[in-house]
Amino acid sequence: MLIDHYNKVRQHSLLLAEPLSDEDCGAQSMLDASPVKWHLAHTTWFFETFILETMEAAFAPFHPAFRVLFNSYYNGVGEKHPRAQRGLLTRPGMAAVRAYRADVDARISGLLASELARPEHEREYERLSILLALGLEHEQQHQELLLTDVKHLLAQSPLFPAYLDASSAAAPVPQHEQGAAWIAFDGGLAQIGHAGDGFCFDNELPRHPQYVAPFQLACALVTNGEYLAFIEAGGYCTAHLWLAEGWDWVRSQGLQCPLYWQRDAAGHWQEFTLYGLRPLDVLAPATHLSLFEADAYAHWAGARLPTEAEWEVAAQGIGVAVGPLPPGAGAPGAGLRQMFGHCWQWTSSSYAPYPGYRPAPGALGEYNGKFMLNQYVLRGSSCATPAGHARASYRNFFPAGARWQFAGIRLARQID
Amino acid sequence: MLIDHYNKVRQHSLLLAEPLSDEDCGAQSMLDASPVKWHLAHTTWFFETFILETMEAAFAPFHPAFRVLFNSYYNGVGEKHPRAQRGLLTRPGMAAVRAYRADVDARISGLLASELARPEHEREYERLSILLALGLEHEQQHQELLLTDVKHLLAQSPLFPAYLDASSAAAPVPQHEQGAAWIAFDGGLAQIGHAGDGFCFDNELPRHPQYVAPFQLACALVTNGEYLAFIEAGGYCTAHLWLAEGWDWVRSQGLQCPLYWQRDAAGHWQEFTLYGLRPLDVLAPATHLSLFEADAYAHWAGARLPTEAEWEVAAQGIGVAVGPLPPGAGAPGAGLRQMFGHCWQWTSSSYAPYPGYRPAPGALGEYNGKFMLNQYVLRGSSCATPAGHARASYRNFFPAGARWQFAGIRLARQID
Amino acid sequence: MLIDHYNKVRQHSLLLAEPLSDEDCGAQSMLDASPVKWHLAHTTWFFETFILETMEAAFAPFHPAFRVLFNSYYNGVGEKHPRAQRGLLTRPGMAAVRAYRADVDARISGLLASELARPEHEREYERLSILLALGLEHEQQHQELLLTDVKHLLAQSPLFPAYLDASSAAAPVPQHEQGAAWIAFDGGLAQIGHAGDGFCFDNELPRHPQYVAPFQLACALVTNGEYLAFIEAGGYCTAHLWLAEGWDWVRSQGLQCPLYWQRDAAGHWQEFTLYGLRPLDVLAPATHLSLFEADAYAHWAGARLPTEAEWEVAAQGIGVAVGPLPPGAGAPGAGLRQMFGHCWQWTSSSYAPYPGYRPAPGALGEYNGKFMLNQYVLRGSSCATPAGHARASYRNFFPAGARWQFAGIRLARQID
Amino acid sequence: MLIDHYNKVRQHSLLLAEPLSDEDCGAQSMLDASPVKWHLAHTTWFFETFILETMEAAFAPFHPAFRVLFNSYYNGVGEKHPRAQRGLLTRPGMAAVRAYRADVDARISGLLASELARPEHEREYERLSILLALGLEHEQQHQELLLTDVKHLLAQSPLFPAYLDASSAAAPVPQHEQGAAWIAFDGGLAQIGHAGDGFCFDNELPRHPQYVAPFQLACALVTNGEYLAFIEAGGYCTAHLWLAEGWDWVRSQGLQCPLYWQRDAAGHWQEFTLYGLRPLDVLAPATHLSLFEADAYAHWAGARLPTEAEWEVAAQGIGVAVGPLPPGAGAPGAGLRQMFGHCWQWTSSSYAPYPGYRPAPGALGEYNGKFMLNQYVLRGSSCATPAGHARASYRNFFPAGARWQFAGIRLARQID
Repeated sequence: MLIDHYNKVRQHSLLLAEPLSDEDCGAQSMLDASPVKWHLAHTTWFFETFILETMEAAFAPFHPAFRVLFNSYYNGVGEKHPRAQRGLLTRPGMAAVRAYRADVDARISGLLASELARPEHEREYERLSILLALGLEHEQQHQELLLTDVKHLLAQSPLFPAYLDASSAAAPVPQHEQGAAWIAFDGGLAQIGHAGDGFCFDNELPRHPQYVAPFQLACALVTNGEYLAFIEAGGYCTAHLWLAEGWDWVRSQGLQCPLYWQRDAAGHWQEFTLYGLRPLDVLAPATHLSLFEADAYAHWAGARLPTEAEWEVAAQGIGVAVGPLPPGAGAPGAGLRQMFGHCWQWTSSSYAPYPGYRPAPGALGEYNGKFMLNQYVLRGSSCATPAGHARASYRNFFPAGARWQFAGIRLARQID
Repeated sequence: MLIDHYNKVRQHSLLLAEPLSDEDCGAQSMLDASPVKWHLAHTTWFFETFILETMEAAFAPFHPAFRVLFNSYYNGVGEKHPRAQRGLLTRPGMAAVRAYRADVDARISGLLASELARPEHEREYERLSILLALGLEHEQQHQELLLTDVKHLLAQSPLFPAYLDASSAAAPVPQHEQGAAWIAFDGGLAQIGHAGDGFCFDNELPRHPQYVAPFQLACALVTNGEYLAFIEAGGYCTAHLWLAEGWDWVRSQGLQCPLYWQRDAAGHWQEFTLYGLRPLDVLAPATHLSLFEADAYAHWAGARLPTEAEWEVAAQGIGVAVGPLPPGAGAPGAGLRQMFGHCWQWTSSSYAPYPGYRPAPGALGEYNGKFMLNQYVLRGSSCATPAGHARASYRNFFPAGARWQFAGIRLARQID
Repeated sequence: MLIDHYNKVRQHSLLLAEPLSDEDCGAQSMLDASPVKWHLAHTTWFFETFILETMEAAFAPFHPAFRVLFNSYYNGVGEKHPRAQRGLLTRPGMAAVRAYRADVDARISGLLASELARPEHEREYERLSILLALGLEHEQQHQELLLTDVKHLLAQSPLFPAYLDASSAAAPVPQHEQGAAWIAFDGGLAQIGHAGDGFCFDNELPRHPQYVAPFQLACALVTNGEYLAFIEAGGYCTAHLWLAEGWDWVRSQGLQCPLYWQRDAAGHWQEFTLYGLRPLDVLAPATHLSLFEADAYAHWAGARLPTEAEWEVAAQGIGVAVGPLPPGAGAPGAGLRQMFGHCWQWTSSSYAPYPGYRPAPGALGEYNGKFMLNQYVLRGSSCATPAGHARASYRNFFPAGARWQFAGIRLARQID
Repeated sequence: MLIDHYNKVRQHSLLLAEPLSDEDCGAQSMLDASPVKWHLAHTTWFFETFILETMEAAFAPFHPAFRVLFNSYYNGVGEKHPRAQRGLLTRPGMAAVRAYRADVDARISGLLASELARPEHEREYERLSILLALGLEHEQQHQELLLTDVKHLLAQSPLFPAYLDASSAAAPVPQHEQGAAWIAFDGGLAQIGHAGDGFCFDNELPRHPQYVAPFQLACALVTNGEYLAFIEAGGYCTAHLWLAEGWDWVRSQGLQCPLYWQRDAAGHWQEFTLYGLRPLDVLAPATHLSLFEADAYAHWAGARLPTEAEWEVAAQGIGVAVGPLPPGAGAPGAGLRQMFGHCWQWTSSSYAPYPGYRPAPGALGEYNGKFMLNQYVLRGSSCATPAGHARASYRNFFPAGARWQFAGIRLARQID
């Protein structure tokens, strides 16, 4: 059963790489992105390093150089290949990385079927289960990154190649709903953070009280059409709408629209998608926005971004959506729509430890805690998030200037 | 009376420049710092632009180019001379800037003595009073920056010149107290933000409830001696103590000690101070630390930095100290010492708007709000803060890597 | 006959790509290098743009985007894809580029077999022949770059993969000869530049007189062993041996040895080659040196680098070697050895136009002339130069810091 | 007599600083420029280090830190204060530097009047004379740099302050002459390099034969009016006129005119001069041009830049002008005008050692030789060159992008 889940998640990564050539899988389009091949290898390295190396009876690495090559940022494990040079690793090639995956998968299977499964090793088996769960959630995070990174890579070619045919079902499709309105929430002392026995990351703990003043949330995400009105009103040229750092960012890069937008020869707006270049869908949620853009838009709209506590309070009454919702499926509760499965939603909250936060011991403690500075929390999930991965207490985080994620805007405002 | 306070604050700025040559006043030692001459001119510009230009009957600028030259960051006022080139403005010279100050001072005096003071202009006079108060608090902020910037400049010369003789009384002297211990505070719903009728900046408002869990604060600041132990324990070489961005920062700059520390030929630690180079005083509070260093130290010491709410809760029972306390003067309350007048104290809180925060209308709205991103709050005040400037709700803020401020460490910890 | 030569040269490019995966062919390891795929496409673009587009009856581009994508630096042709992003063009893929090559080759064949071959089109056919010759020499230049770029790319992987098995015959092997001595040449007014009817680049013309003082050249190239002595004598740490810019270059990059040298765990020197990592061959010519290193070595050895005129005077008596000479094959004349087929030889001459130099009209005029600044001339040819490509008047050129070419040192000295 | 010349040259440096405030003297407007104070100190350091330190009986440095602080680039002397931080040295101040000058001057006087002047020390006295001559020529080079650096600094202030009143006689005034024509020179084997017993720098030696083909030189410099025609013809937007590196330079910096040109509100061209901002004088020689601009202009004008050998051949028949010529004074010979005293004239020759060049032994050998790479030779002299400093064999040199020198264009062309 555990092995079935393991195999399913692992195979999904390969499925995502299916539409791509080996060339596509090797390139790194910017420092923030990684090659698909690297994602496939690194997620495997995670199982090899944190499970096989510590629990396998006669551990021997698949390849001694991989410990360094596919270490992302774990100083506790040792040296790391420089991030900026991941796209230059044409060797090992894709075939070798597939072999690496197969080898580690077989050994994980072996471990699960080994004597560890006997009752007398219950504690160790439980530890294995916990680490496997973490490894699979980790792989799901990389599945989303794989898609955002591939999108960014393909956008570099003037041929604007599609990752998938529009007829295919494998790529995420943003859905939209019409008619935004404000939903009011009472203030008070709320419980924030993960509750219950299910999996969560360490940064969702401990659950703790937090005072939240009464507030309102928009029931839907800001649409491309709404965002276009901001552009046409001169939003990108109006200093007072922007945070100081955001204004410098806009000016130094000469930005005038979201990441994948461009005009065709006739002046019509187009958006590059995983299905190639398409006319801008004005009813779809605006996405690939930085926090700077989200904040300036909110300012212009006479609103603000929610705090992560507000967002979580609002989401607590809602069943977590599994993947993108079918269009018109209706809101899961309270009139709030598009909380999950469309775009991650920027909050105004900097990514910080919850009171009493404790990272895991050892190198795994580097998973989350050391990034809690100069990053901002996004909540919900996107069209690229694997089914079953998100939840109301989930804390995604990126620097304020990151645009290549599926990140959009849900407005909030104070109740007067 | 108002004019007396005005004159006193304004004269203090000139007093601070007294020990300096015109050359000293013109140089800009780094992007973050400004020349003394620029501080003297910009604070004057603030009165001219936000008061004289809006309230003087027949306003004419002292010099038309100054509107741009001495605008710091107010897009609402118009163009700004590039920050990086402030040190290249040898013209206007110091004499011209002194004349600028005298001219604006005379006109402000004139305004205060004009018909505006008559009862029928009460509302306008009140507005004048409010803007004058803001202008003077603004000037006091620059008085502290003037000292930190001069210190940084003088440190660039291998002659290590002193700003003042040790015998002089004009420069700030860090004081120290011995014997740190933990002071416990109850948790609960606290009121955070400025209360009462006195002056405060917009970022201290509105006062609002915030839930704070029980915590402990160290009664005194971390000393140079304690920080030295961290260094000797390999603190600057131990990755797991640092935030990821902090570790990159330490490594890329090859840092091994605080900003103004160095070893003499015999290996003894020295510290550059406003009185020149001196043997390190192991009992004085460690200062000129970045948030990165403060956080790593706290981590190493098995503690953490306080949040700004915790700090404010602790400070609320304390009368605000006016300037540095005389050594051994005793703690103002509750056993907590060195809250004010020694070093600003880094908190783990990112600089963010309080719920319901409203910036001032117009260009003055750019004073604080637009910087609420990727900066962290410091609380208290330092040996360089003008007397009467600080208070319990005061929010100072700098990026995590800033070291040239008098910033130190007060530890906090969770109560088990 | 012309078509046979065309096909042979064109096939050789594909042969060089044979040992590589599609991933290998797509990556760009640094700004100065290009992906193999780009070399294959750009050389094809050259024929399509400068021949087919101007001479084909009903010209239609293979793909409209390729005109921009594979334009290297010809402003006269139009826009260019940014050089730094050549490695991000995973689309078009290798298959598409192979198809592009096949299509252009077929059309060139067609053109050669068309009515252009009839006597009445003699002038146009002659123009075609000249452009074809230029295109093929251009392709040969890229064949050498392809090898140097692949070597640089493979060196980025800690696996140090070999381009070819040592048993294979396809990769260049440096040869060595022992026993350097000085060969003296009389001074006088020499004729410099290409003579005769054979092909040459425009930068080799016009042939012109130049006065050369009596000089001596070393009969052989500096060997790895000799260069090692320079290292061991502290060459990389001795400021006065270096040009000022070279010393800054060495220090800012922390260099201590040639580009592909490293020590193994036991401290033995190894060199990365197209056959993988190998023990340093002390008798082979030192290669992958910058002009800075070549000049510092010469300085240390009490000699200097030759001028390009000196080199050419010395080479004029020598039949041009075709490819690497077999070891021990004997010097072609006058005792000088290793003039061709081992390493390009840095000269002290900046790359400048010969008196009366005229670039070709139109965009082809950008081939050479616009690069005649801040580059230095190398003479001879290397183990990676295609057979038949080099000659005594050939002027290769690179910036002084370039190290990834097969560039070495032949010493010169003044006769006292 | 020697001491009179010494005193006169030394006093001239102080005279040049006269119109400046201490603030002006301390600032460094860019990496390539140095503060006036630094020039005054470094030229003094030169005498102290290379003369007093080696010849004074009981040498003690004026200040031990100055050896490092005012060392420009002599690795043989030891450490150097970082060039980029010369403008941050507000200490030592101007008064201290003046005292330094006075002290060294007195000690040089003492040395000249000491027993060294006795016949039995003839050899040592001769060495002293030679070093003094070098030190004074060195100081004259810095006098010109002082003026170009001050001009650059003052141009940074939007007040566009004048260095001097137009009525003053102390600043250089460019003169102009009308009516350019071509002067033809025969080719042949010329003798290039300094001849005779007078002072010259080591880079002007040895005199040696060089073959020069027949050529023509423009009799006058390109004027502002002529250069304006180039601008109006789109010169800055036409890629094919520029060297590749020049085109990148123009584009990346968005350049559209020479360094100190700008348009006033009405669109009229103005030029910043040492007398402040003035209407562009269309008859004056165009100046403050880079080699890139000079080369593009020549290309546009259907001509080219001269080689340094051509320039020297032409200049050999001419008596060297002492300072700027009075307007209308007539050409000194052969119809060539403006060879000296107006603008340095870019040549197409890279700065390289003459055959048989030998730098001085020891640290003084770093004076010239180590810069012979990636720099280009300028010939003649400018309006800022001290009287008596230039000569026909003088080799000035700067990188191709340097614009802050008084550098202009004399065209050359081949004789058909």
